[in-house]
Amino acid sequence: MLEAEVPVTFQPSGRTMHVLPGTRLLEAAGLAGIVLNQPCGGTGVCGKCRVRCTGEVCPAAPAEAKLFSERELADGFRLACQTTVCGPLTVSVPETTLLAAGHQILDRSGAQAAFPPDPGVRKVYVELAPPTRGDDTPDAIRLEQAVGPLELDLAVAQLLPSRLRQTGFRGTAVKAGTRLIDFEPGNTEAEHLAVAVDVGTTTLVAALLDANTGRERMLVSRLNPQTRFGDDVLSRIVHAATAGGLAELSRVIVEAIDDMLGELTSASGARREHIYEVTVSGNTTMQQLLCRIDPSALGALPFVPSLGPGLECGARELGLNIHARGRVYVMPVVGGFVGGDAVGGILATAMTDIPGPTLLADIGTNGEIVLWAGDRLTAASTAAGPAFEGARILHGMRGSTGAIEKIVVDGRLRLNVIGGVPPVGLCGSALIDVAAELLRHGMATPQGRMLDRDELPAGLLSDLAKRVTRHEGKPALVLAWPEETGSGEPILLTQRDLRELQLATGAIRAGVGILLQEAGLAPQQLETVLIAGGFGNFIRRKNAQRIGLMPAGVPRHSIRYQGNTSLAGAQAVALSRSARRRAEAIARMAEHVDLSTNPTFQAAFANAMIFPDSEPST
Amino acid sequence: MLEAEVPVTFQPSGRTMHVLPGTRLLEAAGLAGIVLNQPCGGTGVCGKCRVRCTGEVCPAAPAEAKLFSERELADGFRLACQTTVCGPLTVSVPETTLLAAGHQILDRSGAQAAFPPDPGVRKVYVELAPPTRGDDTPDAIRLEQAVGPLELDLAVAQLLPSRLRQTGFRGTAVKAGTRLIDFEPGNTEAEHLAVAVDVGTTTLVAALLDANTGRERMLVSRLNPQTRFGDDVLSRIVHAATAGGLAELSRVIVEAIDDMLGELTSASGARREHIYEVTVSGNTTMQQLLCRIDPSALGALPFVPSLGPGLECGARELGLNIHARGRVYVMPVVGGFVGGDAVGGILATAMTDIPGPTLLADIGTNGEIVLWAGDRLTAASTAAGPAFEGARILHGMRGSTGAIEKIVVDGRLRLNVIGGVPPVGLCGSALIDVAAELLRHGMATPQGRMLDRDELPAGLLSDLAKRVTRHEGKPALVLAWPEETGSGEPILLTQRDLRELQLATGAIRAGVGILLQEAGLAPQQLETVLIAGGFGNFIRRKNAQRIGLMPAGVPRHSIRYQGNTSLAGAQAVALSRSARRRAEAIARMAEHVDLSTNPTFQAAFANAMIFPDSEPST
Repeated sequence: MLEAEVPVTFQPSGRTMHVLPGTRLLEAAGLAGIVLNQPCGGTGVCGKCRVRCTGEVCPAAPAEAKLFSERELADGFRLACQTTVCGPLTVSVPETTLLAAGHQILDRSGAQAAFPPDPGVRKVYVELAPPTRGDDTPDAIRLEQAVGPLELDLAVAQLLPSRLRQTGFRGTAVKAGTRLIDFEPGNTEAEHLAVAVDVGTTTLVAALLDANTGRERMLVSRLNPQTRFGDDVLSRIVHAATAGGLAELSRVIVEAIDDMLGELTSASGARREHIYEVTVSGNTTMQQLLCRIDPSALGALPFVPSLGPGLECGARELGLNIHARGRVYVMPVVGGFVGGDAVGGILATAMTDIPGPTLLADIGTNGEIVLWAGDRLTAASTAAGPAFEGARILHGMRGSTGAIEKIVVDGRLRLNVIGGVPPVGLCGSALIDVAAELLRHGMATPQGRMLDRDELPAGLLSDLAKRVTRHEGKPALVLAWPEETGSGEPILLTQRDLRELQLATGAIRAGVGILLQEAGLAPQQLETVLIAGGFGNFIRRKNAQRIGLMPAGVPRHSIRYQGNTSLAGAQAVALSRSARRRAEAIARMAEHVDLSTNPTFQAAFANAMIFPDSEPST
Repeated sequence: MLEAEVPVTFQPSGRTMHVLPGTRLLEAAGLAGIVLNQPCGGTGVCGKCRVRCTGEVCPAAPAEAKLFSERELADGFRLACQTTVCGPLTVSVPETTLLAAGHQILDRSGAQAAFPPDPGVRKVYVELAPPTRGDDTPDAIRLEQAVGPLELDLAVAQLLPSRLRQTGFRGTAVKAGTRLIDFEPGNTEAEHLAVAVDVGTTTLVAALLDANTGRERMLVSRLNPQTRFGDDVLSRIVHAATAGGLAELSRVIVEAIDDMLGELTSASGARREHIYEVTVSGNTTMQQLLCRIDPSALGALPFVPSLGPGLECGARELGLNIHARGRVYVMPVVGGFVGGDAVGGILATAMTDIPGPTLLADIGTNGEIVLWAGDRLTAASTAAGPAFEGARILHGMRGSTGAIEKIVVDGRLRLNVIGGVPPVGLCGSALIDVAAELLRHGMATPQGRMLDRDELPAGLLSDLAKRVTRHEGKPALVLAWPEETGSGEPILLTQRDLRELQLATGAIRAGVGILLQEAGLAPQQLETVLIAGGFGNFIRRKNAQRIGLMPAGVPRHSIRYQGNTSLAGAQAVALSRSARRRAEAIARMAEHVDLSTNPTFQAAFANAMIFPDSEPST
């Protein structure tokens, strides 16, 4: 049965989400794509996530009572990490509370990746004095005197004389570095866009950015169309080796990204020609396929990527329709399958500035695990499979409208559905939730076997017991009844789904284990664990630990959800040249740990497939 | 009557020229396209032009006797600036005597433009260790470890993985700056070419260069095909303004240069894909037309060029078929019509390193005058017309095979013809010669009127007197009789030809006068005069002064012929990055003096049209 959801509207973006009462406001904001500061890790200590609520505001929590005055509390000031949703709300988010996309990724004490907007492309409106009898300065020098050193692109050199004269020598110079790429009529300084793209094995996400302010204007995502050629990187590599395969894989991904550019611009009333740069982050295979670079050396030992440093090329050269002389920057890579996504994650989380051993797990079809410990940065890639992105799961789907993104058992099974509509499937975060609940309620064994109705523990909640059914001859759980769903069909979690989750979890867990082992660390020595991924929205830390995805023994407040850090990295390099330099340095600094050649990985993986047999202590 | 010419063969090039006995060897070498060192200005002092002659070697001149031992003289050692041709000769030119194209332009005390080969494109053969189980370094990083920092061009990134594996990780990395533009199978380090092009209003010259050694491998020239749309820059600008005119002018020049690239490569057994860079030098109009940049602002006051700094672009972008990712560099310009040709001249002659007031006159259809005096570098352009390049002259032609390039009156009129064939016309240097002889023998007035047969001075050489005829109702001089020529028609110098020369000479002379005036200098204060141009070959300084082309009062040994300095400048920037930086600095340092707005120019021009009425003192 679906709990009645309530609307929460965030200002100034105006986005409205429907969430269950009791949802933390921080989480509701995340669902709306609004990431807030939480330097203290959501413990109510720092007060950085302050917002102002109007509507049915919950009573103040003790931490809020400490930080705000009576008057402020009466005026609706709350901490997003402390307050929950009691009823319909409008939430004003001050700019200082926003974790600004890309240019200020984190703002925790001692760990800060602050990149003031400093994009590679600059726009400068100028009003030049036209030539006169006494002033025959060449056009390019005249412009240079106003905008600084210039190199001319041939096409711009060709349009410059007439453009200057048509505009009465007034217009906006567009410079990529020192290269003049356009002289636009009028003052178009305000129209300065960039797009950051996370090319995941399963999911594509693109963000339209205002390069002047660093603000994210819009976000779109879709299934990577290459999934039709196989849902993991190896099957793509195999397809690339067939006749015309590489060109086809490249074409579909370029077309999909170009289509997303169209979606972003038309929906936000922007123009493609005001996008001057597209930055791309993905694992090494995805990046190579996008660039039509043969990935076959990634298909066999020792799994060698071709790209190393970041690749910069013309957008048109790659087939993306932005400004005619717009650029594409593809992130530098670490090695093996550890690509720009991991580099972006390290960059965006500023994890190398965090004191104490720090782990970053970017959970996707290809999972990236990065460990920062004792001045050493190691990174590994592990094939988790697409379960966390909803693929290979009977009713799995991405974290978009209609996806069950949260499952809580609280006397009965409650769901939260993105967009507040009847559910049509479940995404990765709900998959983790349901697996944790199955274990918690003894409905599945640590080996991952789901119990049949006649095996269920005594005293099980009746709502749970009656949901146990069978699918293809094996036990399954009804998450939503036919009458509740968008399709009229029930939404199930099957035994096979749970097996997929076991594999995915085991792969991540084993990867974490090997990196810790290499560094000579026990899990409980980790002081910070950063979880990233686009596998739904907020992952419940307790549930992630229950299924073993996150190491037990790590205090729960040390586990922080960072969102899509691959995308955040791409955003940072789209907006900041210093971020780009940093990304190049990170790629060179990180050491690739090849799990496939690690003699203990197979055993670790087999062990990691077994779920922990008890609830972790917090 | 044609004097019997004798063959002179230069080694190691193997080029043979036919020249009149009495021709200076330096001049014969110049005819063969071999430019020798002459730091002392051909005065026999420095000994830098030493060669070794076999065959009918002339007796040693006093300067030679001073510099060489008896034994050396007996072995045929001579100074090319002192010895003359007495009979058939073979001349060995030591490498140290060659004025190496581009990279060592001049070698005079206190004035040196030495650019060791340091081209923008580098080739490095590498043998990389292939990846192994323990070494999964990305391809690009693996290569970078061997060849230094790399940025990848998309197309190269696409070919790199298969190219590395096909070649067993052995091949030649081709880098343009830090940009990898190719990885060629095998060791192709030796195949590293560049082409320098002088785009003159009338004449195109292209040099194929070995970028490793700086050596010029071959030189070709041809008429600028744009001349069919008008023979001066203004008529081209007018044509560019017609429908499709700009595209047409650009197309014909690009096609002509591309055809010259084919000529250079096929004749020298080289491959177009081993040319990685083409550098272009020309006046501002020529450079803009080549780049298809509207020159209309150059067609009206205040005559504004569009380009300022040098323009770098892809060769394919411009339509030149060299290496697929080869580059084109178009020289920076000064202002008005003063373009890369003048910048190249200043660069190649290193005139700003010469102590004392120094003048450079680049004599072509568009004449460039540059004055270096008291730390100030001023430059002007003057429309000399194409007379010096043989155009608008009844029997005029470029300085190629069949052109009368020298005329001497020595008891009778003697001719020297390029290639030792029957003459078909005359080039610029012969035009200057004949005009000087007409003045010298009283056959023309200082106002430029040629005398009819009945007005000739008493006692004129009978050979000269009998050559006076009429053409279109005005006096003319027969330079070659019908039975002597290649066509069976006589070769004439007409009254109209002399008028064209007067205009051309007057334009240069007036330009020189204005620059001197601006600097507050008298002609005799010039300590060095550098003459450049492709108007034939060696210009006779005495004759140039006789007709007023060069200022009287300048000691003749201070006048030095520098050859085609526009081309030499293009060669320098093709071979040396520091030369390119210097060119950019020169363009910014030079001040453009606009003659068209100078109130005294018209009067100066009118005065300068009158030939000097007497022989200048040496």
